[in-house]
Amino acid sequence: MSSSVDATNLLARLRDLSAIGATASGGVHRPAYSDDDLAAREVVRGWMRELGMTVHVDTAGNTFARLEGSDPALPPIVIGSHTDTVPDGGRYDGALGVVAALEVARTLGEGKGRPRHPLEVVDFQNEEGGIVGSKAAVGRLDAAELSRTAVSGFTLRDGIRRLGGDPDRLDDCVLATGSRAAYVELHIEQGSVLERGGNDIGIVEGIVGIWYWEVSFDGVASHAGTTPMRDRHDALLAAARFVDAVHDVVTSVPGRHVGTVGRLTMHPGAPNVIAGRAVATLELRDLIASTVEKLYQAIEARAGEIARDTGTTVHFRSTTHTTPAPTDPRVRGAIERVAGALGLSTAFLASGAGHDAQHMAIVCPSGMLFVPSVNGLSHTPREFTRDQDCVNGANVLLGVVRHLDALD
Amino acid sequence: MSSSVDATNLLARLRDLSAIGATASGGVHRPAYSDDDLAAREVVRGWMRELGMTVHVDTAGNTFARLEGSDPALPPIVIGSHTDTVPDGGRYDGALGVVAALEVARTLGEGKGRPRHPLEVVDFQNEEGGIVGSKAAVGRLDAAELSRTAVSGFTLRDGIRRLGGDPDRLDDCVLATGSRAAYVELHIEQGSVLERGGNDIGIVEGIVGIWYWEVSFDGVASHAGTTPMRDRHDALLAAARFVDAVHDVVTSVPGRHVGTVGRLTMHPGAPNVIAGRAVATLELRDLIASTVEKLYQAIEARAGEIARDTGTTVHFRSTTHTTPAPTDPRVRGAIERVAGALGLSTAFLASGAGHDAQHMAIVCPSGMLFVPSVNGLSHTPREFTRDQDCVNGANVLLGVVRHLDALD
Repeated sequence: MSSSVDATNLLARLRDLSAIGATASGGVHRPAYSDDDLAAREVVRGWMRELGMTVHVDTAGNTFARLEGSDPALPPIVIGSHTDTVPDGGRYDGALGVVAALEVARTLGEGKGRPRHPLEVVDFQNEEGGIVGSKAAVGRLDAAELSRTAVSGFTLRDGIRRLGGDPDRLDDCVLATGSRAAYVELHIEQGSVLERGGNDIGIVEGIVGIWYWEVSFDGVASHAGTTPMRDRHDALLAAARFVDAVHDVVTSVPGRHVGTVGRLTMHPGAPNVIAGRAVATLELRDLIASTVEKLYQAIEARAGEIARDTGTTVHFRSTTHTTPAPTDPRVRGAIERVAGALGLSTAFLASGAGHDAQHMAIVCPSGMLFVPSVNGLSHTPREFTRDQDCVNGANVLLGVVRHLDALD
Repeated sequence: MSSSVDATNLLARLRDLSAIGATASGGVHRPAYSDDDLAAREVVRGWMRELGMTVHVDTAGNTFARLEGSDPALPPIVIGSHTDTVPDGGRYDGALGVVAALEVARTLGEGKGRPRHPLEVVDFQNEEGGIVGSKAAVGRLDAAELSRTAVSGFTLRDGIRRLGGDPDRLDDCVLATGSRAAYVELHIEQGSVLERGGNDIGIVEGIVGIWYWEVSFDGVASHAGTTPMRDRHDALLAAARFVDAVHDVVTSVPGRHVGTVGRLTMHPGAPNVIAGRAVATLELRDLIASTVEKLYQAIEARAGEIARDTGTTVHFRSTTHTTPAPTDPRVRGAIERVAGALGLSTAFLASGAGHDAQHMAIVCPSGMLFVPSVNGLSHTPREFTRDQDCVNGANVLLGVVRHLDALD
């Protein structure tokens, strides 16, 4: 029984995938449902078949491949990630988790000590456009969402058809609770916590919840030359103070939560007109919902003060949110033990980004492990993870599957 | 010799003009070079001819009409304004000054005591798009500017042709310095200084200079979920603090100067991405250039501190400016004396908006008088000036022309 994956195999597959949708800037462009997205998934299915796995595209367009275990009564352990990318994204986000899962399957399939549980490798569809494939797989994809247009220009409905799914039969793809033994996903960190701490493997404590609001300030649009300073009701001034207040509130409380205003629009938005209306996006993320609730209350109070001081009115509109998804302690424990046995240093951290694992946590014990992103960069052609870190991650994933296989 | 204009005539012409390009919202839409702009100017020329005036369209497309004086050796006194409007603008901005000038000409032409100086009534073209007509009339319109496209979709070159001018012979329209005795323009205030002070007539001390900059902050665009607060280089946060700093600096110094950030753009401008770049417009206006220079230095220093605090860099780019144009003390004195004799209360104020008078000041002693704008509103269908204030303004204009006619 081999104790490690074949690094050459792993890196070759990662390289082969990165050639599909390769961009001039050295990145990868495989937005969900694009021709290159379809091509990459077909390549992955070819590899799965080469490994003797049974390949199945579910009605949501997710690819599953199964390696039988020694005990047919046990539910499968699922490992994998996604192969779609953001526009002009990197070579590691998603792809690493899929090729590592394939290499784990190859190693386990070729070894003498075949696992007791069946092993499933999954390539979820459209992770970057709202973790869509796993959302469907756990029965949370609303029919109304099918009309939404993805970055590639296809609606989710048409995209699912292009992938070989059937948007009218999404109920058929839903994984029953308990139907899987565990879900484990290897992913790049997309941040710099591991790099800064000099750690090899990140043990994900959970995936943060994300809360979104649109915060609008209404004042009075007026002539920038003829309106004295004291007569102004400047909505942009109010929104600007709000941006600063969000930063102030978020950084005044210890913790790993983050708060961001990434977009600010104003009307009329001319250099010589005082803005009558300004709308800011507000995003808060944390593992603990009550922390976000406290931050929100403090931000709302500050916004009220700002509105009074600037002669404007403020309105918060909650748009969407995802709930925090803590990972399963058994998976966390397995990652810690396996990494330790391999001589790899570990750090516990939260995932600030959304991942398919947060959906799979609804169905079965789920967890994630991270490997370092150089300079914390992701969603850019400059996204980079060292070969050794990719191999380390795959080896820990292999060990974790073995560890979980031996439980219960 | 009548001591006052005919209010019925004045208001009827104002009403007739407002019907040309009338919008559903009760406003007026006559952007320069549009069909309705041309139609309004033709109506004005018809009125001029009815008054026995000699009408002339100069090569820049400005309409001039002349009433002969009793002393052919004297240079003309010029009065007027413009009839183009901003998109969906009001009924008074520009139009009041033109119909009042016509009514002054009618009153002087019909009276027994004809003025010594010839009287010229002018309807300048494209005031709203950069005081273009008067700029050409004083020889400051750069040939390169002719390719600029106006709001109506016509270039200045084509627009001038549409008005009956000749863009290739702009030198022919230039008024020689000293060729006019004076220029006086009646305009609505477009602000609320008169209304707040309960004054009837505003004596304009000068037209402010306007300085423009683009202020860009460069940080690092990164993932709003995976980038801890302390690792951010948030360009939008920097720009937001800048907006607040501009307001702070401008209001910390006593005076009538104003400073405005009316537009803020950011890249990439997504709710879940920390902005890597943000660009703010900065506009400062005052009658005194040295005040603006001091404000600018303070703002620049604050921007440098903000950049340091936020881990960004800042760059100021000066785009354009106009110099302050003080009005002529003789014209100011005439307005004050005439208004007082008519029992009207006066206030001295600066014009925060640009006007054709600032160009005419290059050629001859120039001045402006304002009448109150209800609620200070302008450039909107809700722009409103009471009938009595319109009539007061025209009567003061009449008296000022008589006063200036009697000088030297």
